[in-house]
Amino acid sequence: MPELRRDPIIGRWVIISTERGKRPSDFGAEEEPEIGKLCPFCAGNEDKTPSEVLAYGASGREKNKSGWRVRVVPNKFPVLQIEGNIDRKAEGMYDKMNGIGAHEVLIETPNHNQEIPDLPEERFEEVLWAYRDRIIDLRKDVRFEYILIFKNQGMAAGASLQHPHSQLIATPMVPVRVRQEILGSKQYFDYKERCIFCDIIVQELASNTRVVAENDHFVAFEPYAARFPFETWIIPKTHDSHFEDLQKHEALSLSRILKKILHKIRIVLDNPPYNYVIHNSPLKEAPMPHYHWHMEIIPKLHKIAGFEWGTGFYINPTPPEEAAQFLKEAD
Amino acid sequence: MPELRRDPIIGRWVIISTERGKRPSDFGAEEEPEIGKLCPFCAGNEDKTPSEVLAYGASGREKNKSGWRVRVVPNKFPVLQIEGNIDRKAEGMYDKMNGIGAHEVLIETPNHNQEIPDLPEERFEEVLWAYRDRIIDLRKDVRFEYILIFKNQGMAAGASLQHPHSQLIATPMVPVRVRQEILGSKQYFDYKERCIFCDIIVQELASNTRVVAENDHFVAFEPYAARFPFETWIIPKTHDSHFEDLQKHEALSLSRILKKILHKIRIVLDNPPYNYVIHNSPLKEAPMPHYHWHMEIIPKLHKIAGFEWGTGFYINPTPPEEAAQFLKEAD
Repeated sequence: MPELRRDPIIGRWVIISTERGKRPSDFGAEEEPEIGKLCPFCAGNEDKTPSEVLAYGASGREKNKSGWRVRVVPNKFPVLQIEGNIDRKAEGMYDKMNGIGAHEVLIETPNHNQEIPDLPEERFEEVLWAYRDRIIDLRKDVRFEYILIFKNQGMAAGASLQHPHSQLIATPMVPVRVRQEILGSKQYFDYKERCIFCDIIVQELASNTRVVAENDHFVAFEPYAARFPFETWIIPKTHDSHFEDLQKHEALSLSRILKKILHKIRIVLDNPPYNYVIHNSPLKEAPMPHYHWHMEIIPKLHKIAGFEWGTGFYINPTPPEEAAQFLKEAD
Repeated sequence: MPELRRDPIIGRWVIISTERGKRPSDFGAEEEPEIGKLCPFCAGNEDKTPSEVLAYGASGREKNKSGWRVRVVPNKFPVLQIEGNIDRKAEGMYDKMNGIGAHEVLIETPNHNQEIPDLPEERFEEVLWAYRDRIIDLRKDVRFEYILIFKNQGMAAGASLQHPHSQLIATPMVPVRVRQEILGSKQYFDYKERCIFCDIIVQELASNTRVVAENDHFVAFEPYAARFPFETWIIPKTHDSHFEDLQKHEALSLSRILKKILHKIRIVLDNPPYNYVIHNSPLKEAPMPHYHWHMEIIPKLHKIAGFEWGTGFYINPTPPEEAAQFLKEAD
């Protein structure tokens, strides 16, 4: 059973793999690329994954057989375990709980080489519905406080399989970064009685120096204090704290703008590894007037040094205004 | 002039290089290793660096000539600029200030291949004195609020030159991670009237499952909620909030234990890239009963995925207890 441990000083929870821990000899060698190996996410190899929890496919399709367009399966090597009790307790002055949670893989397409920009809009829209449907299903489990949806694209960004996929981790606590965002936006709301994210959208659209793309329902822009070169956020124009409240007509808009941004990033930065993550409200929060869900996309372009790790203080060599210009012009 | 910009939501400051910004074509290619190139940090090449601000050497040695043991020079490509006013102001709802600060390189030895574990104890002790002397000198500049001292060892950890060196950055604000630590330790102090770091030391020495080494004045241990495999902290046993208060007899102890830990890490993990950073009090704080300076050492063993970047929520595949055992046994 993995363990969740809380840093006593700043309250940050960490997942510790207490079983099959990595020994010194397990580090160092690069993981092998998978060329020539059987891909468990490809159509026809459905028996190589744990049994699916969700799939969209042709009507009459049999479970765990081909014929799907999007397929969600439990991760074969989950970082948290679905069965058991949370059992939060002290260890002297420290806090821990059992590593309870869900860890799922959302396979975005049956085709091994079909990246998001290559998918038709309506097909990627289905991936977004799969994100939503899994949140709706998993939030019934009262043990979970938060669901993280993210994508690691490319080995350098942490992906271990090349086949296009996203991941989902349900956790029994709220991650520290999300807590900080909610706290910060609450302080702003208490003072201004406005949502800080809504205010940012207004200012970004007015100044138009960092906006990369815009459609009826979403804006994509480079944040003013971007930590990383070409860091890009996508945010709904209308206030909403919960991603899973996505309306039908908004989903296609989101699919369009995300595909567009990833296409632009691929062209401008020569197909870089990247990560994206959805910052969403905690599961047990009612709609909040101060928090506003959004996506953060981070191309992995340079090494992060000790300075950044040790301090949370970043050096960004590319001004977001210049990054926005490059992305805006790319087609 | 670089810019310091504040994230409006969580208050994190970022350095943005507004001039000579990196363009898309500047990313991608790995920096070339420097083999065969002239090393500006080697003895005899003193004219290849900006003029030194501090050096310990033979008496009668001429400035910017060989004969030094430790030498501190301004960084040739500083991320912050020493001249100018801070000029903090608004940009609409955002905050920024001029990128004022100091960025120095502390060359730990005149010998290109003499890593810290290879240096005699008294020689590395001089590097620690150089850290201290630069803090004492720079804190006279009222524009600065914080001084970061850190080391990037190995290209994968962000070092651009191989010659053993540390770095120092003086900033006009306190980095967010340090602010969080001070805030968290203050909350603990308000409740318990004890320093949380002092309590951690007591518990770690009593349980003895995560302690790697100990001497008269310092303990080195794997933190309970370590973010990274083999993350190691070194902390003074006696409460002190300010690194620069280091006593003469403590400096040799610190040199010994740091050399020992870096030696163990080199053996156990096959000479990995690593970072260390000193977490110290802000310059304008008087001695604090709740904060306790320490060093954090992080070997760079695996890739950090989007999950970690996007959430501040880490997955550590090696339990700190096992890491401590490996390091303890290595000699």
